[in-house]
Amino acid sequence: MRKILLATHGEFAAGILDSVRIIIGDEEKVRALCAYVNPEENFSEQVKESIEGIEERDELVVLTDMLGGSVNNEFMRYLNRPGFYLVTGLNLPLLIALLTSPEADTVRLIQESLEEMKNQIVFCNELKAEEENEDF
Amino acid sequence: MRKILLATHGEFAAGILDSVRIIIGDEEKVRALCAYVNPEENFSEQVKESIEGIEERDELVVLTDMLGGSVNNEFMRYLNRPGFYLVTGLNLPLLIALLTSPEADTVRLIQESLEEMKNQIVFCNELKAEEENEDF
Repeated sequence: MRKILLATHGEFAAGILDSVRIIIGDEEKVRALCAYVNPEENFSEQVKESIEGIEERDELVVLTDMLGGSVNNEFMRYLNRPGFYLVTGLNLPLLIALLTSPEADTVRLIQESLEEMKNQIVFCNELKAEEENEDF
Repeated sequence: MRKILLATHGEFAAGILDSVRIIIGDEEKVRALCAYVNPEENFSEQVKESIEGIEERDELVVLTDMLGGSVNNEFMRYLNRPGFYLVTGLNLPLLIALLTSPEADTVRLIQESLEEMKNQIVFCNELKAEEENEDF
């Protein structure tokens, strides 16, 4: 089974999961891990537990907020772990593509979702200008 | 003055603003608008007010969650308004670039931030494989 974990500095992960719930409904296979919110929680320990929780035949796709950030760095240490996939730069077009694609192969799913996302992070003023030029 | 408004389905906007606060500190010029959270609030009305609040010499950059989504569509109606810039596909690398660049021209700032972001939304397993290949 493929599970998805969203991991970010602060409440970003929980917030984007709220958007997903509104747009496509509850997604049981997606969890949010909000780092540095509760001082009693040890983030490194939570990351370790999430990686060690990957059982045989399971896959875990982790989406973090930012390359070079401490949240992503913590997961980078486990990249050799089988069944673990790490993507950084979490955004809604990417997440929706990951959740709605029928692709069974996880590496292909991630690659295709990243491709699909590219046309959906745009400067809308330029998009509109292009459309208007096409009208002539 | 240039202001930034984050607008999303649900709590995503407030959540990513929480990440920004942890990473670079409080940003007074950035506000979050979380649509469809409080049924007593009229989202179209809130969008209209935010646009009408743009005073002369002010600029408003709005970052929304998703192209084609109802939040972004609501703002698309105002694209001809002077001083209003709309970007969709909100993510942390883009937002941090927008907030930390010294670029004074807003169109160039947005274009450059989108370029900078591209190398920061990545599949880390592939990144690591590329780095290891470079070692040989």
